Amino acid sequence: MRVLKDAPELLSLNTATLGHRLPIEQVIDLVAAKGFGNIVPWRRDLERKSVGAIARQCRDAGLKVNGYCRSTYFPQATAEARKLALQENVYALEDAATLGADVFTLVVGSLPSNSRDLAGARQQVKDGVSELLETAKKVGVRLALEPLHPMTAGDRSCLNTVSQALNWAAEIDPDTCGYLGVAVDVYHVWWDENLEADIARAGREDRLYAFHVCDWLVPTVDLVTDRGMMGDGVIDLKQIRSWVEGAGYTGPVEVEIFSSNNWWQQPEEVVLETCIRRLATVC
Amino acid sequence: MRVLKDAPELLSLNTATLGHRLPIEQVIDLVAAKGFGNIVPWRRDLERKSVGAIARQCRDAGLKVNGYCRSTYFPQATAEARKLALQENVYALEDAATLGADVFTLVVGSLPSNSRDLAGARQQVKDGVSELLETAKKVGVRLALEPLHPMTAGDRSCLNTVSQALNWAAEIDPDTCGYLGVAVDVYHVWWDENLEADIARAGREDRLYAFHVCDWLVPTVDLVTDRGMMGDGVIDLKQIRSWVEGAGYTGPVEVEIFSSNNWWQQPEEVVLETCIRRLATVC
Repeated sequence: MRVLKDAPELLSLNTATLGHRLPIEQVIDLVAAKGFGNIVPWRRDLERKSVGAIARQCRDAGLKVNGYCRSTYFPQATAEARKLALQENVYALEDAATLGADVFTLVVGSLPSNSRDLAGARQQVKDGVSELLETAKKVGVRLALEPLHPMTAGDRSCLNTVSQALNWAAEIDPDTCGYLGVAVDVYHVWWDENLEADIARAGREDRLYAFHVCDWLVPTVDLVTDRGMMGDGVIDLKQIRSWVEGAGYTGPVEVEIFSSNNWWQQPEEVVLETCIRRLATVC
Repeated sequence: MRVLKDAPELLSLNTATLGHRLPIEQVIDLVAAKGFGNIVPWRRDLERKSVGAIARQCRDAGLKVNGYCRSTYFPQATAEARKLALQENVYALEDAATLGADVFTLVVGSLPSNSRDLAGARQQVKDGVSELLETAKKVGVRLALEPLHPMTAGDRSCLNTVSQALNWAAEIDPDTCGYLGVAVDVYHVWWDENLEADIARAGREDRLYAFHVCDWLVPTVDLVTDRGMMGDGVIDLKQIRSWVEGAGYTGPVEVEIFSSNNWWQQPEEVVLETCIRRLATVC
């Protein structure tokens, strides 16, 4: 396994970890100063800003933008709304290209309101990703399908396992064009008894595009914003990283922690220093 | 599909739905009076009571005990504790036999405290179920492996999909002795893209022992006690029941709702009447 200590090129900070409290310009400087070599901004960080200027600032700070978060949900109640969502995703992909992002992260959405048609939502996602893939090739940014934890299946994501993501990718992109893969976030998939096999498959199929870490707390008190710092929960992080690297993944290890009651209340410097320490020890 | 209206023999009430507020003796009378033909008590309902007397009361009230909840968790931090847990499960199975229960429900547990060894926990479950199966055959009560939602994988259950449950059952009981199967609770498995195929497989393999309903609320605010009444959430209940019955299931449809902030605050009669109405309409 790669050594993460003093290896900034292997470390990435997803800005959600800091709770979007500071302007992105300050976040970029802090993240670089604390020893990360990569950053993943969110679209909300860039609202009413010059994407080109942010891209330059990242480059000047020595930060690679390894990902850009995240897609507008694909399933929508009307054809009109679906078209709009797709257009927003096209714009976001163009911004991802401007940022020089390796991947655009697809959090796919799920049931539109008043719907119980999960199979229909899944079809809408596949149709939308198929269309978006054309733009991805054009602008040169890869799409990473991110399976989200099954507890998000009602509202945030009808894509819930790595196996399912790989099946969809094979269906949408049978020729493996190089622009459609998966993001493995330990938080969402650590429980899956097929995980080791699925990660190996993702490697074999050349679709392992991203690797995110945080931890699963016991007890977990919120379905969205109660993620733990690496080491504070029950996920065997080293084991999963060994599977990911054994499958050929060479990209950064990205920290993404949603934590409204703990880490989002702490000073950004403390959060970043803790991340760096834990990456070097428990991941 | 079977018609659930005015068909008490097809309806079962899991006593957790009433929040364990009333003594079981009162619950039995209420459940029978409201039109259920079956009941599933919990071990806590029977503490310091005569199991034989409760069994008689159920029979006299015209209630079949279709299940008994639930196993002590199999994975434990020490061999001593594992032995104790197994012994408790043996006693519970004997009570299940006294009750004339169709199945004893296995909620299997997960990581012992301070452990991150999920594979180890899974092995402990399989070992424990193997041993318990001998008692099950002896007392004539079937064991139903219940996969719990992946959000319970840290503490309550390392068994999280129907597919996984069927794989374990095949491993533990390759000859299909007739005493090891699965319980399908829509709450835990509704999100799974393989569900239809897995339910069909459970039917083919003669392991479809129980079917539980409630609903998934959006948003869900608690990982354990925020289940919805059928019809109040996003699960396509009729579709899943059609799969279950299509696979040959002829047992009752069991209502099991954990709802600390809503249904457990309402009068038992209201809860039971609502269940009966919803069973007849949205399930």
